[in-house]
Amino acid sequence: MSDNINADTAANTAAINERHRVRMERKKAIIDAAITKADKEIGIIIVNTGNGKGKSSSGFGMAIRAMGHGMKVGVVQFIKGAMSTGEEKFLRRFPDEISFHAMGEGYTWETQNRERDIEKAELAWEQAKTFLADPSYGLVLFDELNIALKYNYLDVHKVIADLLERPAMQHVVITGRGAPDELIAIADTVTEMAVVKHAYAAGIGAQIGTEW
Amino acid sequence: MSDNINADTAANTAAINERHRVRMERKKAIIDAAITKADKEIGIIIVNTGNGKGKSSSGFGMAIRAMGHGMKVGVVQFIKGAMSTGEEKFLRRFPDEISFHAMGEGYTWETQNRERDIEKAELAWEQAKTFLADPSYGLVLFDELNIALKYNYLDVHKVIADLLERPAMQHVVITGRGAPDELIAIADTVTEMAVVKHAYAAGIGAQIGTEW
Repeated sequence: MSDNINADTAANTAAINERHRVRMERKKAIIDAAITKADKEIGIIIVNTGNGKGKSSSGFGMAIRAMGHGMKVGVVQFIKGAMSTGEEKFLRRFPDEISFHAMGEGYTWETQNRERDIEKAELAWEQAKTFLADPSYGLVLFDELNIALKYNYLDVHKVIADLLERPAMQHVVITGRGAPDELIAIADTVTEMAVVKHAYAAGIGAQIGTEW
Repeated sequence: MSDNINADTAANTAAINERHRVRMERKKAIIDAAITKADKEIGIIIVNTGNGKGKSSSGFGMAIRAMGHGMKVGVVQFIKGAMSTGEEKFLRRFPDEISFHAMGEGYTWETQNRERDIEKAELAWEQAKTFLADPSYGLVLFDELNIALKYNYLDVHKVIADLLERPAMQHVVITGRGAPDELIAIADTVTEMAVVKHAYAAGIGAQIGTEW
């Protein structure tokens, strides 16, 4: 090959390298911008609904995740309360880190008293509102709130207004079957826990440690 | 009415009462049998899969639920490990109650090294097997095991054989996207966490306290 051709090849290689560098630089800028865009730090509303397992337990998993990062957690249970659960027994050991309020009396088909259910739900929402007014709580969990909304024990629009007025950095986790559409519309992350199969169908009861 | 008719009526009433008593006795027996049937106490396999939120957090919620009832818990994380999570920070405070092993190095698209991923998964399964051989662990959580199975880092049939040989009262919770059909077939409770909406789509990043 002539010296001219060699010089051309070297120039070509340098040009290719430079084009590559510019392309990668542009790519990096796009990726960095995407990361920056998805790094918005703000309190979010998470809703766990559906008929499958894991709605409440996921909420409690997020509670200890937040506690692991030193965030203070508030819990209001809207239905549970009549029977002590494993999560309650465990979490009550840390009163400085988590404020735990089991304010229900059981599911509505157990209590069979609509007036009393409404009264209980309203009291529970009063407690919820004290958390929503206090920026020292980094994450609040309203366990089974969806049930109270589904049966109209609480007004969904009033609940949403209170949720939207909370401190900017506060996360809210709401669980329970039948989340109303209005709540889903204003939530940031909504998961439907769907049953693929359930041990109960095979004759296995609600077991200690996994179900309560 | 004649005395004869009165005597007939009284006999009829007694007969009706007796038939009712027998019917109710039979009904009670059926209900009791149903309750007994669904009160089977046995260690179950729970699988949390799907693309939505709540698979791992639900597993950790079940872990503290079990701890609240005084059960000892074992955790193996198959993917996480490179970065400390809130749940790890929190749960490591209770070394007598929970044995925590974060044995991964990140997702496969982060490590980009299939041989090393397999090596790590095999080491993690060795730890898992020590839990599966020890009846003192009431609940064991294999976080993101489904990922290791999905990429064939571990043989699903060997894993299933080990799972089925565990102590009778031990619960196993397995999480991660893409649970293989073979695992679903032998599991007792399977939930698909389905995305209804996710904050990430709105430009909100993986946030401390809720996502890790």
